[in-house]
Amino acid sequence: MVARTVDLRSDTVTKPTETMRAAMATAEVDDDILGADPTAFRLESEVAKITGKEAGLFVSSGTMGNLISVLVHCDIRGSEVILGDNSHIHIYENGGISTIGGVHPRPVKNNEDGTMDIDSIEVAIRDPRGELVFPTTKLICLENSHANSGGRCLSAEYTERVGELAKKHGLKLHIDGARIFNASVALGVPVQRLVQAADSVSVCLSKGLGAPVGSVIVGSKSFITKARRLRKTLGGGMRQVGFICAAAFVALKENVEKLDGDHKKAKELAEGLNQIKGLKVDIAAVETNIIYVDIVEGSKITAEKLYKNLEEHGVLVMPKGLSRMRIVLHHQISSSDVHYTLSCFQQAFSGMHQENGSYSISTSRGVSYS
Amino acid sequence: MVARTVDLRSDTVTKPTETMRAAMATAEVDDDILGADPTAFRLESEVAKITGKEAGLFVSSGTMGNLISVLVHCDIRGSEVILGDNSHIHIYENGGISTIGGVHPRPVKNNEDGTMDIDSIEVAIRDPRGELVFPTTKLICLENSHANSGGRCLSAEYTERVGELAKKHGLKLHIDGARIFNASVALGVPVQRLVQAADSVSVCLSKGLGAPVGSVIVGSKSFITKARRLRKTLGGGMRQVGFICAAAFVALKENVEKLDGDHKKAKELAEGLNQIKGLKVDIAAVETNIIYVDIVEGSKITAEKLYKNLEEHGVLVMPKGLSRMRIVLHHQISSSDVHYTLSCFQQAFSGMHQENGSYSISTSRGVSYS
Amino acid sequence: MVARTVDLRSDTVTKPTETMRAAMATAEVDDDILGADPTAFRLESEVAKITGKEAGLFVSSGTMGNLISVLVHCDIRGSEVILGDNSHIHIYENGGISTIGGVHPRPVKNNEDGTMDIDSIEVAIRDPRGELVFPTTKLICLENSHANSGGRCLSAEYTERVGELAKKHGLKLHIDGARIFNASVALGVPVQRLVQAADSVSVCLSKGLGAPVGSVIVGSKSFITKARRLRKTLGGGMRQVGFICAAAFVALKENVEKLDGDHKKAKELAEGLNQIKGLKVDIAAVETNIIYVDIVEGSKITAEKLYKNLEEHGVLVMPKGLSRMRIVLHHQISSSDVHYTLSCFQQAFSGMHQENGSYSISTSRGVSYS
Amino acid sequence: MVARTVDLRSDTVTKPTETMRAAMATAEVDDDILGADPTAFRLESEVAKITGKEAGLFVSSGTMGNLISVLVHCDIRGSEVILGDNSHIHIYENGGISTIGGVHPRPVKNNEDGTMDIDSIEVAIRDPRGELVFPTTKLICLENSHANSGGRCLSAEYTERVGELAKKHGLKLHIDGARIFNASVALGVPVQRLVQAADSVSVCLSKGLGAPVGSVIVGSKSFITKARRLRKTLGGGMRQVGFICAAAFVALKENVEKLDGDHKKAKELAEGLNQIKGLKVDIAAVETNIIYVDIVEGSKITAEKLYKNLEEHGVLVMPKGLSRMRIVLHHQISSSDVHYTLSCFQQAFSGMHQENGSYSISTSRGVSYS
Repeated sequence: MVARTVDLRSDTVTKPTETMRAAMATAEVDDDILGADPTAFRLESEVAKITGKEAGLFVSSGTMGNLISVLVHCDIRGSEVILGDNSHIHIYENGGISTIGGVHPRPVKNNEDGTMDIDSIEVAIRDPRGELVFPTTKLICLENSHANSGGRCLSAEYTERVGELAKKHGLKLHIDGARIFNASVALGVPVQRLVQAADSVSVCLSKGLGAPVGSVIVGSKSFITKARRLRKTLGGGMRQVGFICAAAFVALKENVEKLDGDHKKAKELAEGLNQIKGLKVDIAAVETNIIYVDIVEGSKITAEKLYKNLEEHGVLVMPKGLSRMRIVLHHQISSSDVHYTLSCFQQAFSGMHQENGSYSISTSRGVSYS
Repeated sequence: MVARTVDLRSDTVTKPTETMRAAMATAEVDDDILGADPTAFRLESEVAKITGKEAGLFVSSGTMGNLISVLVHCDIRGSEVILGDNSHIHIYENGGISTIGGVHPRPVKNNEDGTMDIDSIEVAIRDPRGELVFPTTKLICLENSHANSGGRCLSAEYTERVGELAKKHGLKLHIDGARIFNASVALGVPVQRLVQAADSVSVCLSKGLGAPVGSVIVGSKSFITKARRLRKTLGGGMRQVGFICAAAFVALKENVEKLDGDHKKAKELAEGLNQIKGLKVDIAAVETNIIYVDIVEGSKITAEKLYKNLEEHGVLVMPKGLSRMRIVLHHQISSSDVHYTLSCFQQAFSGMHQENGSYSISTSRGVSYS
Repeated sequence: MVARTVDLRSDTVTKPTETMRAAMATAEVDDDILGADPTAFRLESEVAKITGKEAGLFVSSGTMGNLISVLVHCDIRGSEVILGDNSHIHIYENGGISTIGGVHPRPVKNNEDGTMDIDSIEVAIRDPRGELVFPTTKLICLENSHANSGGRCLSAEYTERVGELAKKHGLKLHIDGARIFNASVALGVPVQRLVQAADSVSVCLSKGLGAPVGSVIVGSKSFITKARRLRKTLGGGMRQVGFICAAAFVALKENVEKLDGDHKKAKELAEGLNQIKGLKVDIAAVETNIIYVDIVEGSKITAEKLYKNLEEHGVLVMPKGLSRMRIVLHHQISSSDVHYTLSCFQQAFSGMHQENGSYSISTSRGVSYS
Repeated sequence: MVARTVDLRSDTVTKPTETMRAAMATAEVDDDILGADPTAFRLESEVAKITGKEAGLFVSSGTMGNLISVLVHCDIRGSEVILGDNSHIHIYENGGISTIGGVHPRPVKNNEDGTMDIDSIEVAIRDPRGELVFPTTKLICLENSHANSGGRCLSAEYTERVGELAKKHGLKLHIDGARIFNASVALGVPVQRLVQAADSVSVCLSKGLGAPVGSVIVGSKSFITKARRLRKTLGGGMRQVGFICAAAFVALKENVEKLDGDHKKAKELAEGLNQIKGLKVDIAAVETNIIYVDIVEGSKITAEKLYKNLEEHGVLVMPKGLSRMRIVLHHQISSSDVHYTLSCFQQAFSGMHQENGSYSISTSRGVSYS
């Protein structure tokens, strides 16, 4: 029996706050397909303003935001997109840009910090007037913060350089900003500055910001007009969508300021885990709310046993490959949860020889944490 | 200044009821992408039960429901779907099954009652072992009630015959059930019976049933497993989606019984309009909540002027081509609204010679309807 | 044992002439992917000249010609094409424009003469600035002569009217000219005039003209540049393709003048068949080299038996549905073949009672036709 | 004025031999779409036999061969293919598998020898029953010899290991065998052994083997049946295609034995070029008929000037990026051509200071090489 659950698998698992529920209960709504929902419009305008873009469009997920953005920029058959070989779009979105959109991905190596070398991007660009056998590069995608690199942040300067490269070659730049607010807070740089060079950004509100559902994509008015049509094609248009937008608006207003705390807790947890013999964390890489933890080769405990042991204590992490796990902090993980998690890990590693012994989960938990 | 609005453009314009808002405010929710949202599950199970299918999946719109259903049945490159040439999927869904899914549509003529001749369907089927130049028919789609035919209903017997044909040729049968509850109420036949022959059904909750957002598709467990994956590809997966499902659940529980009233009001309005010189309605065709009204050739008033005049009185209808309009009833249109609408029409036709005269909108409205 | 074969299934079954073989044997060739094959260029220029267009591109089949043309005109995701519901592209090309190209077809009813009503076309056009739920009409396709209507010809005037409609709505017009030379000869109107209103034409050289392989698509230089790239994408680019083009060039030079004879023989055969009790041919509809023959209900002989009987005599026809067959004339069908075919049909119908009798194929054939 | 041309851009530029022309002139042909061309059938059977597969299909190019093969193996929406990030399919085929076929590519790093690390392949495989956000890996592609790695060969052992991996995970293995005969000759291993583990192979006949046009794909009967249908969809089916097949058959019979000579000449040319100050060739990497030559940084002559200078002497090479060129040998490049080429290079590098001087191309050429 698990008395306490600390779900560290993702920052998507947050529960809506009371303020969000209240906002939903009183939200003014109308048919958004007919362009009439005021609450959707208010949210879209707000995100457009924060990002410094002309217009915004609410979509049901980050995946839909990226899919629509890539497809709008790559609207002509034979388009190619340059993106990180370790990016969320390439790895975790079902290959939708190809399987649904027919866009050809040209992955470029992601460095450990989530960047791609500017030179490598440039080499990968195919001139539209070029050889008969080349697709036409239309778009470059960045991801900030970069999930698979452990939530590391792209600087405004780096993004700007990529933007200049894009402009030089007549390409568009899209930023997957699933956690752009985390990057903004960690870097101490306004979101608007971080995405200034981008033609479109997909901003997720249901990750660290804790909204129950939704992302907003932003860009020029003409981009959003095309995006709105494509959203309808995908079936992503929703009628009285204002309810969801009302909660997302609260997330935007109330939870950005909580991100800094998440990052501090992540750092604390990372340092604690790194001190456990058998675990290894690249502390410097923990820039935001994501921690990658490696189980050192030769460790006394297998990954499988570790996860099982943690789960028995209510601590959920996300396995990534054979000996790596991902841990994500969010505003509903308290300092107490961090300490509890650390102690569960410590116990798992120290208590392995007691596996067949008298080791009692419930007692230990009861004593330490309840 | 418009003091009263009677929005008859569609049954998608309903506003959520207080019960729905309350249900949302207290809904138990969790991360549905991780398969954990209990309220989504409850709604999906309920619709599956009502339709007599194994499983259900919540989607953000009828368009997404149809798109996913067609694409799951037509998952192999080179698939063809037989559907009505006047069906919603063929006409009003952006051609998404082709432009997003690469499925080839083979439209068959829709009769005035929304059916397709069984013989015409059979002739259109292409044998998978057939000629080298044929795509492979995989699916037949029906629509019940049939929107573009004025909301007319397909009988259980007709659907069954199509189902037998499908089975005979190894095809699947999908029903676009955007208004399947209207059909069920009008025919006096349970939904389950109406869709018994279908492999999948897309059931809309945000049309006549008045939910703010959403449809549920139902089918076999294996169909739903594939549908869930495709929903993710489209970006239609939502995190704490239970809020929306809670409202939709209320719609299902409270509003089915209101449909009969909508149908009666539609009949009443249709008869009234048909008595206006210059308008023509096929009364017999008004089986549910949709009315098609034709402006008779040689009418004193042009369609454009009529719509403008109605709009000035707050009555909104949906133009369909040059001399036809669509009117849709729903539970938030009262008997009083029906009478008001009728009188606005009457005035528009009788008062046309007064266009430059002393005709006063506000007065007339004040007298008759406030 | 069959001593004589009269293959009337299609005009694609012609064997290359000696002149063609000689042209191939001496053709000057080079790498056409590198744009260097002089014989390909000569053929492409010749067809461009005949059709009055800027440029041409050799493709391996009429299907590829149509596929590339439609996809170039509909290069943006969400495009729709209006085409005949009985057209070759819609029925006999694997649905490739959708399954490969993601283009949404909007079929309009083909009249018996292969036309579509101009009004019906116009109603089907979707305004690109129109409703959120409409794909964007980009293209209208005609077919001249129209195969499934029995090879009937579209007049220059009709085509021009469709061209004007297309222009009015900012659409392109493509003509599937698989048998455009047959139409030209039958109407006594130059090909250039018949396709004047078209933005692109697919001209087949391996049907009535008897080339072993190939079609040429023609249009503006910019259209052909895009077509060349798409041909490469499909893998339709060929290296020393001049050999095939050399034979096709001969077809163009030597065989156009033979088409009139084919049409006369078709008429003669049609009239003969129509006089057989049990068969019915719409003589007036036989405008070119195609005959549709119906087996009258209540005929003494079933279609199956008829085909078998004919095949035993070496006469091959193409069944179309249950009681209809297609017969196609070409320059390698002689007058003698026509008479022989007629007599085989006559015998089949008169001799049915002799099925178990002493009826001798070889004798009868020897006497009448050798 | 150029008196002599040595075209080293590709082995696709060969001119058909007299034997090929003779074979074409006398080839027995018939309508291959109706499955009746005996010469096509003979060629397809021969390649199937050589590769040890059940059946073959003639296609117009290597690109079409790969496109069809990948699409047949990945016939279900949502399929992913693992292939080299430097492979011909990924880089030089217009992204057709995505833009036409909707297949998602998952490129894995190509080592310098054209292999991908087996471990890297395995990590990239996505389990079909896996996470909701993954496409389904269906296919692994290898390329032998590997063009972009300078024509290096994959050993039978390596291919077998990849085949075992594929089998273990229920995947298919396709080999792009554009130059599989070069690999076979260089390794001294029969083609059949090299492709034993593959489910399909695309064998090109118009590269080193010198056929004017065409490739043959081979695989199981069921694979070829599907491939034939897809070839029709692409418009790649050709009527009397036997002419081309006749020439290709000669290529297969007469030119395999010439490949060894090409490889020796390549080695000789590579060694000569490597001795020129300012050029660098990895001699060990020249395993077949392809040479990659780098212009050393700080060289006296720019790439642009070098290509121009060579072209003035009739020597054509293929630039690859800013300071690299590709040279490809084939059976119509004689030893004399090799020596001439070498001397042109030498002159270009030694004679650069004479640019404004009395350097005379025609004389020097006349003296040395005619």
